[in-house]
Amino acid sequence: MTTQPRDNLIAWLRDAYAMEGQAVELLERQIERLEHYPEIRTKLQEHLTETKGQRAALEQAFNLLGSDPSALKASVMKVAANLQGMMHSLSSDEVMKHALGSYAFEQFEAASYQALVTAAEQAGEREVASTCSTILREEQAMAAWLWEHLPQLTQLYLQRSASGADAKR
Amino acid sequence: MTTQPRDNLIAWLRDAYAMEGQAVELLERQIERLEHYPEIRTKLQEHLTETKGQRAALEQAFNLLGSDPSALKASVMKVAANLQGMMHSLSSDEVMKHALGSYAFEQFEAASYQALVTAAEQAGEREVASTCSTILREEQAMAAWLWEHLPQLTQLYLQRSASGADAKR
Repeated sequence: MTTQPRDNLIAWLRDAYAMEGQAVELLERQIERLEHYPEIRTKLQEHLTETKGQRAALEQAFNLLGSDPSALKASVMKVAANLQGMMHSLSSDEVMKHALGSYAFEQFEAASYQALVTAAEQAGEREVASTCSTILREEQAMAAWLWEHLPQLTQLYLQRSASGADAKR
Repeated sequence: MTTQPRDNLIAWLRDAYAMEGQAVELLERQIERLEHYPEIRTKLQEHLTETKGQRAALEQAFNLLGSDPSALKASVMKVAANLQGMMHSLSSDEVMKHALGSYAFEQFEAASYQALVTAAEQAGEREVASTCSTILREEQAMAAWLWEHLPQLTQLYLQRSASGADAKR
């Protein structure tokens, strides 16, 4: 059995669409929960808007390819995102668990789009490659922001924690 | 209730120790499964040896702090790693799912050690900070290798897949 690059491209775009559904849930849960870390909250709100734009861009890519996104898988990924949010909310260092998890998730997204750029190029779908390349840069920028702010967040968490202030979220 | 940086440091070192247990399982499962991607297999074997060294370095850090690693959490993380491996083995593009997952996991590890470096510095534990800083660079190097090899792996996967060769693992 053979699978052509175009079929792999469509399958991976479906994965990416489900992943963005998961991203929206992860971001919304964090934004709801954060109380004492306003700078992160603001950045997550910005990235939520960006993520919704990415989802719309993926929908256009599906249109270009004459395919449609899979709703079923997206709902499974949303459940996974909410379970993760619930697990983190049980930790006394919820904000730290979310920061590490969000950074890894952004990198997962970046790697997914890097694979998609290669697949779109192999399938001769230049416009889809260009869309995925744009989203890739947005995910990398978000990951870089989280990485740069991690020492500052860690210090703030440790300070609040040592002073008896509510540090959890 | 207050929590001092040293207590957070010890708690996060326990998380890191459990994470390295998860890393060993993830690497072992992938090494067992990979058949047609020898370059990745070799690199994962090297990183498995490195990871076991990291676990030993963390044990020394616990000794320095007069604490011990938590066995219980480590076993939970091992189960999670094996479940993930099982899920990936159900995909026709198992090698790609593992590559994306491994890259995200390495970045998760890197971020965890970055938080640990900050916590160790705040707790005045310079030697622990230095250990975590060394491991951080190893995780970043592994993540960079995976990122650099992702386009090549994707092309190889797509070629094998299009030619009817076994591409899965």
